[in-house]
This record gives sequence, structure tokens and C-alpha cells, in this order.
Amino acid sequence: MQVEEQRLREDLEANAEHGKIDVEEGRGRTVLTGTEANRGAREMLVKRMEAAGLDVEIDAVGNIAGTWCPESADEDAAPVAAGSHVDSVPEGGIFDGPLGVYAALEAVRAMRGASVEPARPLVVVSFTEEEGQRFADGLLGSSVAIGERTVEEALAIEDDDGITLEEALAGMGFRGEGRLDASAWDAWYELHVEQDTRLEREDVPVGVVTTITGITHCEVDLLGEANHAGATPMDQRTDALAAAAEVVLDVEAAAHDVVDEESETAVGTVGSLSVSPNATNVVPGQVELGVDIRDIEYQSMQTIVEATRASLGVVETDRGVETSFERPFDLEPTPMSEDLRAAAHRAGEKTGIPTMDLHSGAAHDTMHLADVTEASLLFAPSADGISHNPREWTDWADCAKGAQVLAGAMADAAGPACDGQ
Amino acid sequence: MQVEEQRLREDLEANAEHGKIDVEEGRGRTVLTGTEANRGAREMLVKRMEAAGLDVEIDAVGNIAGTWCPESADEDAAPVAAGSHVDSVPEGGIFDGPLGVYAALEAVRAMRGASVEPARPLVVVSFTEEEGQRFADGLLGSSVAIGERTVEEALAIEDDDGITLEEALAGMGFRGEGRLDASAWDAWYELHVEQDTRLEREDVPVGVVTTITGITHCEVDLLGEANHAGATPMDQRTDALAAAAEVVLDVEAAAHDVVDEESETAVGTVGSLSVSPNATNVVPGQVELGVDIRDIEYQSMQTIVEATRASLGVVETDRGVETSFERPFDLEPTPMSEDLRAAAHRAGEKTGIPTMDLHSGAAHDTMHLADVTEASLLFAPSADGISHNPREWTDWADCAKGAQVLAGAMADAAGPACDGQ
Repeated sequence: MQVEEQRLREDLEANAEHGKIDVEEGRGRTVLTGTEANRGAREMLVKRMEAAGLDVEIDAVGNIAGTWCPESADEDAAPVAAGSHVDSVPEGGIFDGPLGVYAALEAVRAMRGASVEPARPLVVVSFTEEEGQRFADGLLGSSVAIGERTVEEALAIEDDDGITLEEALAGMGFRGEGRLDASAWDAWYELHVEQDTRLEREDVPVGVVTTITGITHCEVDLLGEANHAGATPMDQRTDALAAAAEVVLDVEAAAHDVVDEESETAVGTVGSLSVSPNATNVVPGQVELGVDIRDIEYQSMQTIVEATRASLGVVETDRGVETSFERPFDLEPTPMSEDLRAAAHRAGEKTGIPTMDLHSGAAHDTMHLADVTEASLLFAPSADGISHNPREWTDWADCAKGAQVLAGAMADAAGPACDGQ
Repeated sequence: MQVEEQRLREDLEANAEHGKIDVEEGRGRTVLTGTEANRGAREMLVKRMEAAGLDVEIDAVGNIAGTWCPESADEDAAPVAAGSHVDSVPEGGIFDGPLGVYAALEAVRAMRGASVEPARPLVVVSFTEEEGQRFADGLLGSSVAIGERTVEEALAIEDDDGITLEEALAGMGFRGEGRLDASAWDAWYELHVEQDTRLEREDVPVGVVTTITGITHCEVDLLGEANHAGATPMDQRTDALAAAAEVVLDVEAAAHDVVDEESETAVGTVGSLSVSPNATNVVPGQVELGVDIRDIEYQSMQTIVEATRASLGVVETDRGVETSFERPFDLEPTPMSEDLRAAAHRAGEKTGIPTMDLHSGAAHDTMHLADVTEASLLFAPSADGISHNPREWTDWADCAKGAQVLAGAMADAAGPACDGQ
């Protein structure tokens, strides 16, 4: 069983034409849910699924599922599913999402070409609105597929202009029926670009994710006193930005400490900071911070959260600012299926493709799927770790190696006696 | 010679109706150059000047000058001028600017009422666009009056909508002729609210400014690398915000050091900070800082500037960020006229009104006037130091005391034998 690099590349390059943007460097696209670019990418996917002999279904929230149920398979057996998404961030790259969808399609084509006879049906999936750029905050289609959110709730979500997801889906002809039910699957695989440099540094083409990190977002507010920068003596100030600067450095230091002492995969980031009134000649009166904390160990995340709160206590005492702290988003780490990870490593060994364990610091639909079925996430190398950017790049040979390991792992999971090697 | 608190208060309260805004606390107004509110405030001022017997002239950039040349005065003698401005910041207070204009008018009325016989003409002035909220960066009318900017240059300045100052002035009927020439004046006084708490803390109603601080603005750019906050390990980051946080704290520390060791009036402020891309889940790639540095000693300002640059060198070395530094605005400290300061203190002594020396950390038109004539700046107390805010407040009795000292000082400067006490 051999995936074809050229066929996969042609899929990805054709997909990249939808929402293509002019850029000086790299290849970019903007594919927001419900746009013409999204319609084009979806229609192309449906056509290519059908051309590969899959039965295509669109569910009520626009999730696309193409099923191959060969004669060897029990049509009532729980299927093995794989895929990702075709939407993108604004001015994103051409691999994030489409690689996982078309690698899964190529895997099925390779199985069919090699006359593999799986015992379970195989399903290729593209979830709606993974990026959360227009509707909700991300992982939308998979949230419905795992039953975390109802179809009705999802369809009622509005974009910034008050257009509902239902209207957007209907507008491009992808408001289908029913609900794709991921809990009915026996296994789920997703191949995604790594968005980091570990595979590149180790020169390994396929990563097998051990755990998707948990994610905490904290919203921090610091209230000082806005005052004339010229007329307010240094000892009369309550400068919210100087206080915030201490917090920024404390969060960073806490994350470094946790990396050194508790868990080397931990990260803590102050990604956003907004100053009010934000005028050069006014002592800052208020600052809002957005903090992102992740790790494969929830306890390590807690350590960084506690350090952040302690830092707020210090600036309250030392600087007289008032602070508030909220934690609007908190997700525990998600371990991947050990059986499916083992199947992926086996698939690499059988085809001479090196694989390595690593964790994922980014959230993916697979995080949701792991709640209802065995789930596994595979990574392909990202040049310089760049992602969500037209300079995002994965060599075509690496795309094919990822698809090859995916195909072997899917065949393994859909076994028995599926070794089409 | 006695100024009338009630008459001055009535002027200021009537002026406050122009551009009045609804606020929960305090009394606010928005009077941007060329607006209906500005027209109303200007027309009222012209009427009250004429009612006080002044000859009113409007120059080409809208500066308003009302001259009283009594029989005692040599009409060719260099006049003594005083005033301020009637424009405001958006949602500003009712004293910043109008107090200086109407106190000068009240001073002339008091002199006339007391039959003071000055040897020089007296001129009450309201400069155009002191606040720089719609056209240019501030002190616009006075920049033309001192010859720093030509009439043509000033009239061609556009607001954000491409409307020129000339069009805005013509639209409200205040595009006059000629150029008010401040270099022809023998002396200039401005009474302004302090915008700080030194008078309040010392319980002294009138401040006599020794020096207006110099002002340096620095624009600092820090360039790191934007990256996925989840997928980028702590040791692989070039976080522009963490680097900027160090610079913010270094600027603050340098200013405190200078206050302790060199000059207690020095201030250093990072007033603005903008992060890119400013998303909670992205390691910040770029940060822009706006730094404001002031003191009455230029050398102390230089010390803080050098400390800022040194801090940039440290984060370049330690964190691998690239930095750039510009100093687009740099003004040396402006000492006030010793003769006029002495006259102000004498005026206080004669009327039993306590006065004290202090410096000004804020820029005022007087900073310009000092380039071409003897100039003096007087302060009235600001409750809690609040300014550019509807909660800006100066007690009416303090307004009157400031006007009384101003009147005495003007009469002194316009002498001889002008003691109308």
C-alpha cells in the first residue's frame, strides 16, 4: 500500500486556490466559514471524495463525511475515521487543516489501490469552523459531533455582523441534515502540521502525539490612575503599565521555573496587553492582559496560574493598583489513545518512515474526539515552526510520509488482516 | 485694585456652556478648534472683551487679541500681554485655558475699575488650538505668534478628515487678517490650572513657575518573533512583550534614580504600548512604546534617555530582539523671566495672597512666548491634580486669587506708578 505524493500534492495545491491571497513570500489563503472560498474548497472536497468512491454526507452543521464501506467490511461495525478541516485563519497557510483531510482521502485511495480489505468502514471527515475565526471560538464542528454542543446551539451562533452559522451554511449550500456522531466511531486519526520545530530539529518526518496540552486563558485587569505624565511626580503615580510589566515578567519567569523544575513542556504567555488611555504623555490608568497557560500536566498549569495570582497580589501591595483576575477558559490535558499511537509507530516501522513521540501545545479537533472515542494526532514537520501564516510550509515528501503512516495506522485500526504493504 | 470673583466666575460658567457635555461627576466640555462649540466660546469672548472696552483683533490663524490702551499709555510702547486659550481636549474640564483668558480680562477690568494708569497698553489674548486635538500637536496659535511657524504653514495643516485649519477657521468666521506678533510685547503672563497637587498640598493659592520642564518623546520599537503560544517552548521564544516589560520597568527605575540622585523634578513615563498581533494565544512579535521624559534640568532628561537606550541594548543581547529608537520630539527646559516672577510674588505680598515657586511639568503657550519676550506662568490649584477631565476643579476663590495676583503683576509690568491697590 503506497500513498502517491503527486496525487496528494495536486489535491493540496488545487485546494490552495480557494481563498488564495497574493503574498510576497510563501502561499496564503483566507477561507472563513460560509464564504465563497469556503464553498469552493468544500465543493472540491466533495467531488474528490466521490471520485474516490466515497459516499458523502453533509450534516446539519456542515461537517463533511465521506464513507468507504468495502465488501470486506461489516457495515454495522464502528468505523475508523480520519480528517481535519478546510477552513483557515485570515491569511493563513495552505497546509493547516487541508493536509489532514486530503491525507485521509489519499490513505483511503491507497488502500483501495492496494486492495486492502478492512473489516471496518473508513470515514474521511472535514469539520466545520475549526479555526473559530467567524463563528464561536474554534473546534465548532467537532463540538457538535461529540455532543458537547447541540445542532441548534451551533446553528444559532452569530458572526460579528449578526449572520447565523445556519444562514452562512445555507448560503453556500452546506446546511445538511442530521448530526455526524463521532461517538459511533471506533477510532479517529488526524494528521496536522506540527506548528513547532521539534520534528525539523530531529529530522523526523512523522510525530505521534502523546498528549494534547491543557489550556487555561486568564484575563487580568490592572487599575491604576491616569495622570499627566509631565505634571505627576514619580512618587505620586499609580502606573498601571509599570505594574503590568512586572506581571508579564512574573508569568514568564514562572513558566521557566516550571519548565526547569516540574514539567519541561509547560508554557506561559502574556499574548495580549492593552493600555488605556495609551497616550505617550499620560501615565497609564488601566491595563488588560490576556494570559495563555498550557501543559501536558494540569498541576504545572496550576502552578503558573498561582504564580500569576501571586504576582497580582504583589503589585497590589507594592504599587497600589487594583487588580482583577478571571479564568474564562480552562481545559485539562488530553492524553491520546495508546493503542492508536502504537499503531502509528508500527505503520512507520513497516514502511521505514521514522516516527517520534511528542506532545501538542496547540488545540485540535482531536482534543474533542478523544472525549468520545479512541483518538490519535499525528504531526508533519513545519518549516521553522511557522503556522497561521503564508510562510507555513511542509515539504511535499513529508506530506506524503505523514499520509503513508496515517494510511498504515488507519488500515491497522480497521483490521484485521489489513496489511496491504 | 480688586478683581471680582463673582464676575470671573460668571465668565467661566458662561464659557463652560459652549461644548458642555453630560457627565455624572464634575463639569465637562469638548471644544475642538473650528467646531460650533469653539465658535460660541470665541464669540462670547469677543463680546466680553468689547464690553470691557478692549479693541479686538483676530489674526489670520484665529488668535484673538483685545487691547486696552488707556490715555496714560504710550500707544507705541511694547504692551504687556496675558491670556491662554479657550479650546479644550475632548471631554476636558472647564478651567484649563479659559481661566487664563478670563482672569486676564478680569485683571484689565479691575485695573480700569480702580483707575490704574498703566504706561503700556495691555493685551488680553486667546491662542488658537493650544491643545492640538484637531490640528497639529499643540501650541499652534502661539507658534505662529512667535514666528516659529508661518501663517501659511499653519493654515494648511489638515485634520484627520483632510479639512484645513484655514477652512475650519473660515467656517466659524474666525479667519482674520495679519499676524499677532508676540515679539512686540514687553511681557507675557499666563495663569493656568496646576494639573498637579503641590499647591493643594501646601495650601497655597498661587504658584509662580520657575521653569517649564523640557520634554523628550522617544519612540521605541521591539521586534521579536510572533509564534504559537502553545506550540513554542519557553526556550525557543523571542517574546517582544516580555522584552518591552523590562524596558518599561527600566525607564521607571531610571526616573526614580534621577529623582533620588540628580533632580527631584525629573519624570519618565512609558505612556503608550502597542502589541502585535496582540492575541492571547500568540507570543507577541512586535511592541511599540511611547516614552515621555521631562525635567527642569536637560542633563537629567539625558540621563533617563541614556538609561532607556541602555535597556534596549540589554534586551537585544539577553533576549535576541531587534530594537529601534527614535527621539522625534525634544525641547529643552524653559526658565521663566525672573523680573516677572518677582513682580508676581510682589503682587501676592501686596494683597496678602500667599505665593510659592514651583516648576511646570506640562507644556503651555508660555513655553513659546519665552522665546521672544519676557514670560511668566502662574498656577492656580487643581483639586487632586486632576485635569483634562470633567473632574478638573479649581475653587472659585482660588480662581479669583490667581486673577488678583495676575492683575497686580500685569499692572506692575505695565507700570510705572500703577499701584491701584
